[in-house]
Amino acid sequence: MKELEERILQDGIIINNEILKIDSFINHQIDVNLLNDISKYIAQNFSDINKILTIETSGIAFAIGVSQQFGNVPVVFAKKSASKIVDLNNVYTSKVHSFTKNTNNIICVDKRFLSKNDKILIVDDFLAEGNASLGLIDLCEQAGAEIKGVAIVVEKRFQGGRTKIEQKGIKVLSCASIDHFENGTIVFSKD
Amino acid sequence: MKELEERILQDGIIINNEILKIDSFINHQIDVNLLNDISKYIAQNFSDINKILTIETSGIAFAIGVSQQFGNVPVVFAKKSASKIVDLNNVYTSKVHSFTKNTNNIICVDKRFLSKNDKILIVDDFLAEGNASLGLIDLCEQAGAEIKGVAIVVEKRFQGGRTKIEQKGIKVLSCASIDHFENGTIVFSKD
Repeated sequence: MKELEERILQDGIIINNEILKIDSFINHQIDVNLLNDISKYIAQNFSDINKILTIETSGIAFAIGVSQQFGNVPVVFAKKSASKIVDLNNVYTSKVHSFTKNTNNIICVDKRFLSKNDKILIVDDFLAEGNASLGLIDLCEQAGAEIKGVAIVVEKRFQGGRTKIEQKGIKVLSCASIDHFENGTIVFSKD
Repeated sequence: MKELEERILQDGIIINNEILKIDSFINHQIDVNLLNDISKYIAQNFSDINKILTIETSGIAFAIGVSQQFGNVPVVFAKKSASKIVDLNNVYTSKVHSFTKNTNNIICVDKRFLSKNDKILIVDDFLAEGNASLGLIDLCEQAGAEIKGVAIVVEKRFQGGRTKIEQKGIKVLSCASIDHFENGTIVFSKD
């Protein structure tokens, strides 16, 4: 998505040739015009969706935008819990490693909000090693929900998350895909 | 807002005559049709806004909806950080006590995203003791930003948060205001 790539080049900040900071328009301050355009782009690439699944925190904003493009289908966000889960009988859980924070989290969704009748689009702001997305996929599989795809705002292709998801037969769409960083500049994927 | 009150009566769950669980439509699964209606209701009650400020996590969804009603003004969400702030020179911080979790958090916003040119509407899902809202107000005051008001999805009037905010001369709007719980049922405020 050309508009997003241009914005990343203009306002993104690369730290240590590895971390891309896009907090002025994606995940601390959010450009809602851009969010609306990203949501439209995502919706053009999927169909027959009746629920959006994301994970707190930064995915929530984009999940709302995408839901609006699919007639305001419900949004469910998985919760991260470093602490105890009160009642394991009522929630689906999965363990997720955070690349940026180097921590393990248990993520969970109440069983009332995922079922075998759901046709899920997973939405998140970042795809790197794929751990958050794989955790969300795991929750859907436990519920027997159908996964229609994974839609990502910014992918860091070189960290391999896409491959792991595609190996499960699940479609991945990213609005901007960074192939690699080169001497402090961004090289986007060609496909 | 009658539609929200009816939904709370229909789907809200009261725990220990104190905690209202509205996770099936507000803060775990989100009813996006209802979110759009809530956002319109909020926007009718404020004007001349150029930025929405909220706090992770559950406020973000509603901040996006409200932004869309004000021509897609930027949304900024304050981050909660139990851990160290990397560089105090670059962020505004405030200490916030969480009523439901009984923990203290430092909340912060990057100084690039709040300034004296901003006309801020603070948006959050819950108002109880008012600590989160007062923390966000504190951040705005440090930045010299103008606070146009505080818009809340569900207020628990009996916990006193509104009074503390109004004493600062700031307008508070809640879409549903719970006066008190009575024998496990909800009594809404009359005004």
